[in-house]
Amino acid sequence: MPARVDQRTVSRRKPPSAANGRKGRPAAAARPRQVAGELLEDLALQAARIREHAYAPYSRFKVGAAVLGASGRVYTGCNVENCSYGLALCAERGAVAAAVAAGETSLLAAAVLTGSEEPSPPCGMCLQTLAEFGSPEMPVLLVNLRGVRRLLALGELMPHAFARSFL
Amino acid sequence: MPARVDQRTVSRRKPPSAANGRKGRPAAAARPRQVAGELLEDLALQAARIREHAYAPYSRFKVGAAVLGASGRVYTGCNVENCSYGLALCAERGAVAAAVAAGETSLLAAAVLTGSEEPSPPCGMCLQTLAEFGSPEMPVLLVNLRGVRRLLALGELMPHAFARSFL
Amino acid sequence: MPARVDQRTVSRRKPPSAANGRKGRPAAAARPRQVAGELLEDLALQAARIREHAYAPYSRFKVGAAVLGASGRVYTGCNVENCSYGLALCAERGAVAAAVAAGETSLLAAAVLTGSEEPSPPCGMCLQTLAEFGSPEMPVLLVNLRGVRRLLALGELMPHAFARSFL
Amino acid sequence: MPARVDQRTVSRRKPPSAANGRKGRPAAAARPRQVAGELLEDLALQAARIREHAYAPYSRFKVGAAVLGASGRVYTGCNVENCSYGLALCAERGAVAAAVAAGETSLLAAAVLTGSEEPSPPCGMCLQTLAEFGSPEMPVLLVNLRGVRRLLALGELMPHAFARSFL
Repeated sequence: MPARVDQRTVSRRKPPSAANGRKGRPAAAARPRQVAGELLEDLALQAARIREHAYAPYSRFKVGAAVLGASGRVYTGCNVENCSYGLALCAERGAVAAAVAAGETSLLAAAVLTGSEEPSPPCGMCLQTLAEFGSPEMPVLLVNLRGVRRLLALGELMPHAFARSFL
Repeated sequence: MPARVDQRTVSRRKPPSAANGRKGRPAAAARPRQVAGELLEDLALQAARIREHAYAPYSRFKVGAAVLGASGRVYTGCNVENCSYGLALCAERGAVAAAVAAGETSLLAAAVLTGSEEPSPPCGMCLQTLAEFGSPEMPVLLVNLRGVRRLLALGELMPHAFARSFL
Repeated sequence: MPARVDQRTVSRRKPPSAANGRKGRPAAAARPRQVAGELLEDLALQAARIREHAYAPYSRFKVGAAVLGASGRVYTGCNVENCSYGLALCAERGAVAAAVAAGETSLLAAAVLTGSEEPSPPCGMCLQTLAEFGSPEMPVLLVNLRGVRRLLALGELMPHAFARSFL
Repeated sequence: MPARVDQRTVSRRKPPSAANGRKGRPAAAARPRQVAGELLEDLALQAARIREHAYAPYSRFKVGAAVLGASGRVYTGCNVENCSYGLALCAERGAVAAAVAAGETSLLAAAVLTGSEEPSPPCGMCLQTLAEFGSPEMPVLLVNLRGVRRLLALGELMPHAFARSFL
């Protein structure tokens, strides 16, 4: 169930360039938009909780993810694998699907929790999925089970995203 | 939000063959397991509601889906497209992701709602996704906006499913 | 390298219903179109050969596939997995991609070779991919390493395919 | 048919960090490995040719791609869409599938040709697919129909790739 958060803690100023509008411009200067630390920690916590439900009998690699919608609500997802490996759904994509199903098409932040030795970045599929609904300044918090944290902007993870404007 | 339903209306007897265990056996005799009509209608209703949130700016083909978990709860999803078309997430897959994220890995029924002239069956990706968590007897109700209904068993839609037992 | 085959051995009469045009009509009566036995055997042979190149370090499940284009040429593919499991590309999809890249958008037959105990059917993703370019009467030959064979029509594998006509 | 190229024009020194081995280390300093200009031009030419076969009736966005294997051979692919949008196969992924099917699992360079106003970068799915077989220094040449060129390293396009080492 999405938790309501204090809106004042989220910076809402228009980002310099919207994800859907950029045209191969290098986002080299992308830095994570400032989002209150406790908000990101809440995302990480919810990602850790949902990870318990990951269905990963094939990879044994359980992932939990949480995204923050523009409304202030949080949506979560875990990975859902399939005996046909190509149908594996990543946790980040599940969280985005939950957000969109709730009517949110603008995302402000994300957190990903894995059991890897180093915090793991989203795969390319997830980066592209996040870019459909988030700006290059969207903060993406990577956390592992030992609590190691790493904060990157979406535009640092995929500086030259394929976008709708190319179509 | 998942609605709690009366468990007595759902037949729980062990299906003749579990999806994950079958080995290319023809499921030619698959018939939809009996699920109370009002339950299927509720799935269709919830699929129609969530369809309003479909993000389909590329195909303009909005889909809503609902699945019934073994716990009696209902989970919903809508399609979520991407400017990279191959990242489009079907409504059925979103609903399954929501179910699994809530801890359900056994699904009893599904409904799909589309705006097509004839009620539309799930695509192959969705059939394979449903087969990971449902049996061949799982009823799949197809409905369109004019209210035309069609009820099929998962095993009628994909009689020779690829399953874990082949790996 | 695609092998040129004798066109006379392939039945070309218009199938009763084209894959792209059917509208949820049950294809219960679908039977594999008659394709010369030696032609199907050649597909199986080529599927076995290409399987040697399968890149399957994650599932260890190697698959080879071959499809026959309307020109009489044969195209092959093997599965290509990825550390992000959802990016795994099935052998059948690789073979179809090779056919389309060579200018073929009408496929007449397919063969799939796996190392499973029983010959394995294509997964739902592959069925949907084949249905974009093949008719319900398209023969799909399933073979395993021990030489066990099973011949099914595409319309037997997915009797109620999602098709372009629903969009 | 893959063209054989002069091996001496391709730099083969061990890249500073292999794609499959890196662990979230920033590849901020990634620069395209030096590959002879004529070689890249050949990739662009072959990408343009194969693009003619793109099957893109849904997006109308035709893409061609070519990759250079470690053997010196070139493999090509075009996008292959499906009425179920999520099954769209990108041109880059088709080219990689062709390379792997020919026995190549080490890729040295890639070119992508689109009809967009600005040369279009690969989507996240393609970046992840390329990263399975290429190093961060792998040059990726982006070209459009007007001949505008842009050369980037894979590690510039996805500086913090998800890799096998995280599993």
